[in-house]
Amino acid sequence: MLPTGSRGPHVVAFGGGHGLYATLSALRHVTGNLTAVVTVADDGGSSGRLRSELGILPPGDLRMALSALCDDGEWGQMWRDVLQHRYATDGPLNNHATGNLLIASVWSLLGDNAEGLDFVGRLLGVHGRVLPMSDQPMDIEAEFDESGHKKIVRGQSKVAVAPGRLESLRLIPQDATAHPAVLDAIANADWAVFGPGSWYTSVIPHLMLPDIRQALAASPAKILLALNLTSDTETSDMEHADHIRSFLAHSEGLAPNVVIADPTAIDDLGSLDEAVSAIDAGLILRQIHTADNPAVHDPLRFAAALRDAFEGTMHDVGQSRSQQKR
Amino acid sequence: MLPTGSRGPHVVAFGGGHGLYATLSALRHVTGNLTAVVTVADDGGSSGRLRSELGILPPGDLRMALSALCDDGEWGQMWRDVLQHRYATDGPLNNHATGNLLIASVWSLLGDNAEGLDFVGRLLGVHGRVLPMSDQPMDIEAEFDESGHKKIVRGQSKVAVAPGRLESLRLIPQDATAHPAVLDAIANADWAVFGPGSWYTSVIPHLMLPDIRQALAASPAKILLALNLTSDTETSDMEHADHIRSFLAHSEGLAPNVVIADPTAIDDLGSLDEAVSAIDAGLILRQIHTADNPAVHDPLRFAAALRDAFEGTMHDVGQSRSQQKR
Repeated sequence: MLPTGSRGPHVVAFGGGHGLYATLSALRHVTGNLTAVVTVADDGGSSGRLRSELGILPPGDLRMALSALCDDGEWGQMWRDVLQHRYATDGPLNNHATGNLLIASVWSLLGDNAEGLDFVGRLLGVHGRVLPMSDQPMDIEAEFDESGHKKIVRGQSKVAVAPGRLESLRLIPQDATAHPAVLDAIANADWAVFGPGSWYTSVIPHLMLPDIRQALAASPAKILLALNLTSDTETSDMEHADHIRSFLAHSEGLAPNVVIADPTAIDDLGSLDEAVSAIDAGLILRQIHTADNPAVHDPLRFAAALRDAFEGTMHDVGQSRSQQKR
Repeated sequence: MLPTGSRGPHVVAFGGGHGLYATLSALRHVTGNLTAVVTVADDGGSSGRLRSELGILPPGDLRMALSALCDDGEWGQMWRDVLQHRYATDGPLNNHATGNLLIASVWSLLGDNAEGLDFVGRLLGVHGRVLPMSDQPMDIEAEFDESGHKKIVRGQSKVAVAPGRLESLRLIPQDATAHPAVLDAIANADWAVFGPGSWYTSVIPHLMLPDIRQALAASPAKILLALNLTSDTETSDMEHADHIRSFLAHSEGLAPNVVIADPTAIDDLGSLDEAVSAIDAGLILRQIHTADNPAVHDPLRFAAALRDAFEGTMHDVGQSRSQQKR
């Protein structure tokens, strides 16, 4: 485990929830220079209730990211368990995660979201930094086509499970700005990592903030896209190649330099290869799921794939990919 | 500030809430060998709601005691502020102290009250140890005489503000036992400190557990009683001398060896002196309130009085007391 500030590429990882947790659990093995950027549009569960009751950013995905980066020692592990612990009661505390309440309290005392997360990060001995994509709580609104009927769905938790084909996506407020520390991290990054994660509610929202797109365009950082192991309601009608096209449709000219995918998760390798070739990107095909579960990322396998991408060994993989195609 | 384990007498301080907070804020200047024993009968406010929703010991007075003993450094002070922070909302979190929620969560994970408090104590860099008087949540029940009408009042929060004269006090369950670590601390103590604090709901309950009385009787520890600066609803009809008599009425033979009182708070010094002399105890009369507020303990003045008691300089005070009597 590389400590914070030690050698390794500067990596900024964008996401939210379980997908970002998987990325960070892998990236912590690869670099000590790590910034996690977390969506702030969650409106469900403990986070949604706290957001509504306290008027704060939804803390849950930020708590998850901190937990993924916590120190391996007894102290860090125990505090991670405390922060991840959820009350199980018949009363109003039911399902609240302790870390969500703690982060809310620290925010209230310090009056600064990033400073508060750094402070809780010190408690956990976090390796790296966790930032909200913005200081403004946001809502996700999407237009769906369900058998020819158009409908607007608002709220991350509802968008994530809405039936029909997603036709367009908006962040509300539309003039939201990125957290300044996120823009700084992008400017100094070697790599920007997107995915895995809920595609429209955790991955794509980052690309919808104009200043994040501009910062990525101005940065020397290369973009790595890690495709999902499984599809969910949001992406049930999407091939892996469609994710590349969806990324391009929301990024205004930004394109991945490398794509990581698990070959066992891919139905149509030919179309994925075509989509990756069309943007002149490298494709790394590796088993990154656990031995037991094709839907769960193995931190070390995923870490090895990420390291190979950062070290530029895509070319070898490109060759093996060509061999696979024959 | 003496660190934990450094020189100084072994002191066990009994109480609850703001009174114990004042004692501990003073004692931390006097010894590094300090155990706080906290009542577990609170049923009001944030503690009462958590006790009811989660079926745990009321955590509030334990949190207060930990806060009083937290480290002076930036880390300890900041975490103390976080633990003491209360949410102010229109919703179900309103008035919950963050530390109460955190302690509840740690208890749930560790499954042991004392171990959980030690763990939170490590976060705060606590000097000393905080223990619940018992692992069993308790209720206080009292019989009052209000103008000749007898009535039973149950619950610490109700007993504390009930009108009328308190005639008898019970702990429920009546067969509750002390926390084993409390008995160990008493056995190894040089001093047992009672008060200041809400007399019937924070101070006297400790004396009502038979095993605490037995441990005190078997211990070489001397007993110090610090009388209150002001009276409250519980003690509105009691002189300072009545507190000595009330202590004796509940202690089955145990008597204070030293009594600390603030002369500016005493109406009838003669009767107090008589009550103290009757048990052959030393009386230390000192201004222990702050320069600004006769109802608030000054930690350093109170610490000086406690140190003088522990060092056996009561005799000097006894002489000055005799002079005052003339």
